[in-house]
Amino acid sequence: MTEIKFTESIGIELIRCLADDAFVAQAARVSTAGDLKPVEPGQGKLINYLMTKKHGSPFEHGLFTFRAEVPIFVAREWMRHRTGWSYNELSGRYTELSPRFYLPPADRAITQSGKPGAYDYAPGSLTQMGLLRAHTRESCAKAWTAYQAMLDAGISRELARGVLPLNLVTVFYATCNPRSLMHWLSLRSVSDHAAYPSTPQWEIAEAARQVEDHFKYWMPVTWSAYDNAGRVSP
Amino acid sequence: MTEIKFTESIGIELIRCLADDAFVAQAARVSTAGDLKPVEPGQGKLINYLMTKKHGSPFEHGLFTFRAEVPIFVAREWMRHRTGWSYNELSGRYTELSPRFYLPPADRAITQSGKPGAYDYAPGSLTQMGLLRAHTRESCAKAWTAYQAMLDAGISRELARGVLPLNLVTVFYATCNPRSLMHWLSLRSVSDHAAYPSTPQWEIAEAARQVEDHFKYWMPVTWSAYDNAGRVSP
Amino acid sequence: MTEIKFTESIGIELIRCLADDAFVAQAARVSTAGDLKPVEPGQGKLINYLMTKKHGSPFEHGLFTFRAEVPIFVAREWMRHRTGWSYNELSGRYTELSPRFYLPPADRAITQSGKPGAYDYAPGSLTQMGLLRAHTRESCAKAWTAYQAMLDAGISRELARGVLPLNLVTVFYATCNPRSLMHWLSLRSVSDHAAYPSTPQWEIAEAARQVEDHFKYWMPVTWSAYDNAGRVSP
Amino acid sequence: MTEIKFTESIGIELIRCLADDAFVAQAARVSTAGDLKPVEPGQGKLINYLMTKKHGSPFEHGLFTFRAEVPIFVAREWMRHRTGWSYNELSGRYTELSPRFYLPPADRAITQSGKPGAYDYAPGSLTQMGLLRAHTRESCAKAWTAYQAMLDAGISRELARGVLPLNLVTVFYATCNPRSLMHWLSLRSVSDHAAYPSTPQWEIAEAARQVEDHFKYWMPVTWSAYDNAGRVSP
Repeated sequence: MTEIKFTESIGIELIRCLADDAFVAQAARVSTAGDLKPVEPGQGKLINYLMTKKHGSPFEHGLFTFRAEVPIFVAREWMRHRTGWSYNELSGRYTELSPRFYLPPADRAITQSGKPGAYDYAPGSLTQMGLLRAHTRESCAKAWTAYQAMLDAGISRELARGVLPLNLVTVFYATCNPRSLMHWLSLRSVSDHAAYPSTPQWEIAEAARQVEDHFKYWMPVTWSAYDNAGRVSP
Repeated sequence: MTEIKFTESIGIELIRCLADDAFVAQAARVSTAGDLKPVEPGQGKLINYLMTKKHGSPFEHGLFTFRAEVPIFVAREWMRHRTGWSYNELSGRYTELSPRFYLPPADRAITQSGKPGAYDYAPGSLTQMGLLRAHTRESCAKAWTAYQAMLDAGISRELARGVLPLNLVTVFYATCNPRSLMHWLSLRSVSDHAAYPSTPQWEIAEAARQVEDHFKYWMPVTWSAYDNAGRVSP
Repeated sequence: MTEIKFTESIGIELIRCLADDAFVAQAARVSTAGDLKPVEPGQGKLINYLMTKKHGSPFEHGLFTFRAEVPIFVAREWMRHRTGWSYNELSGRYTELSPRFYLPPADRAITQSGKPGAYDYAPGSLTQMGLLRAHTRESCAKAWTAYQAMLDAGISRELARGVLPLNLVTVFYATCNPRSLMHWLSLRSVSDHAAYPSTPQWEIAEAARQVEDHFKYWMPVTWSAYDNAGRVSP
Repeated sequence: MTEIKFTESIGIELIRCLADDAFVAQAARVSTAGDLKPVEPGQGKLINYLMTKKHGSPFEHGLFTFRAEVPIFVAREWMRHRTGWSYNELSGRYTELSPRFYLPPADRAITQSGKPGAYDYAPGSLTQMGLLRAHTRESCAKAWTAYQAMLDAGISRELARGVLPLNLVTVFYATCNPRSLMHWLSLRSVSDHAAYPSTPQWEIAEAARQVEDHFKYWMPVTWSAYDNAGRVSP
């Protein structure tokens, strides 16, 4: 029997990318019949203009494909995003799943107070963290045993998986364009920006942090413009 | 403590609808400047023509809103559909979830053989069904106990829910237009049609069966045209 | 031969609608398992919260269908919007078009100075307006004569229409949900709001003004929240 | 004054591409946890399976960006496609347009008989072709003179362009994923396939022919599967 593993990892890998600042400018310049003229260094002014004036379409001609290994509850929050996103995911009907479960890392704030949409999170005591870990480990192990027992008895995978928990690690490919990526970031990342609307769960915010690193690396000028504009997508 | 319930129900309710065959014809007739002319009885010929010729857009000017109470694994299959769909779902971050878990009904085929995409399902023995039910009940009860214990200890809902299983019943609103509904049906329902591509899981096929009943009731001519065209969406 | 008509009208008619503030609240409340509880009067607080926190999805479960009679250049600006919109339009392939052309009304600012994206428009002299009208009338009449002559000679409609101008009045059905409507308004309407990004052409802004009147009538609380939030779509 | 040009060209250029058969297979294989295994040569069997079983999502993780120089009436037919497409186009508000007009080539069938959706097209006599060319040339020249006269008089570009005809050549960038490309092809290209639904206008069918050449070059296995499946998009 496969050994049960617990992981603290939110794993985001960039596996394909065709996106750069210069092409944003090129696509925008077709508006003024300038798309075939030589590209000048520094697209910052134009890109800032597009961002603040909400000309979003020039940011759509690119592609990022991520491979995510995250708990199912994060996959569910992610896939709520539909426009400009494409997904392929590990199937619990087509394959026997693997016993890998997510456990929050030691420095994750684990207690919650306040009202929906305005929660405060705090670290929690050692006792609380111990209890969280013990219950999670035990409950997942139990679920895995039940899953295996049902498979061994010839029950179909699609039904046996019903007992598997939301912190089971799933794998999916997610492709988006830069505009959709910025919209997603504006809702799924955290920021010190005063007017920032969203209060995402830590785990998807951690995924967003990694996605944003890739975005910033490949499109530094666009990223700056996005950040300067208050992290609001055009 | 709330009592744990197991349910065999896949519950789909139509709660809002603005969709009818006559408006498909009206929208299509704007093509030929005929949209404001008196509507003749019987739109069948035009609607059949639109369906077979893949003129899909006249089927988009309508709305169905369903309220679904289904296990999470069904919600995940459903929400894979992005174009022309809108969703709002019960949140495990904002509210304490309720202990309602899905169990397959007694006549559900529970064993699986064959290859991915071409499985054969068979009823299974009484022993197998008993084993499925016992493991599912026990594993879900265990998960619920762990969830409650963590909440009692002050752990945040968003983390405690990690142990809850995929057969937990969730609730969501799903709104779509008739064209997206037909596309969804073509992939999520079962049919005797020889060339039918899809082999959906029984539970979402049951949801699709209920959705299709509503569709057929409100748009009988469109439904017939869809069915006659091999259940392929325009 | 049909008489040529010139019109100053941007004509938007609401022909179907299923949208109200109460349902926004109902859909949002499924998050906290409250969607089936009796609806209290006054959804303002919740709807304002959704708007400012960018919870956009509860605004998607509704439908507005407009019938627009506008010049082709406005139709082109409108149909640039793809997400959450459905269209059916008068076809120049399937039907012989009618000689109705748009002329700007007398109080329309008709001269332009400044740079792309930051134009200033001014009324223009009587001479300029006279010249605009004379050239437009003459050129459209010439184009119509050519169109008719080609049709009379048996040339196909789809080729003959090539000479018809962009101010020819077209007709289309446009269906959207309230969220897409707000996004469209934020780019196609004008506002005194200081931070307002868009500088739409007067003709589509006039279409947007009429669309916004319908939106405000059917969803007054949502409209207020949208306006208070700086006319930015959630 | 710029010289008026007439062109018979439907010009489609592929300017960016990230799309290949191998990645379709890789994305699909995440379903069965096989995406990181070494890729075997020959993805044909899997890709054919995905196509016929309507598993469309693995075909979405790619990008084609085309630069199109086509008459406005073709741009309008093209941009009717919304899902999975992004556009940026030459602006008649931001720039002075150029006098380039489309004329059908000598071997284009120019007469039409039959009913909407089932037209027969025939070559037309030399007289008819001569008449088409003369009327088109004269009408476009007249429109251009009016456009120039209005600009010279200080009328804004956005209003002056109203007289310009639908056969004016426009330029736009169009980005799509392979799945959307196939759907577009299924409606905008011509085929001998008996059950083929669409009867597109020759000019957009010519654009589709060029787009299909690029698609076939970069994704030969996917193209074959699409063609074998009756040219129906998954």
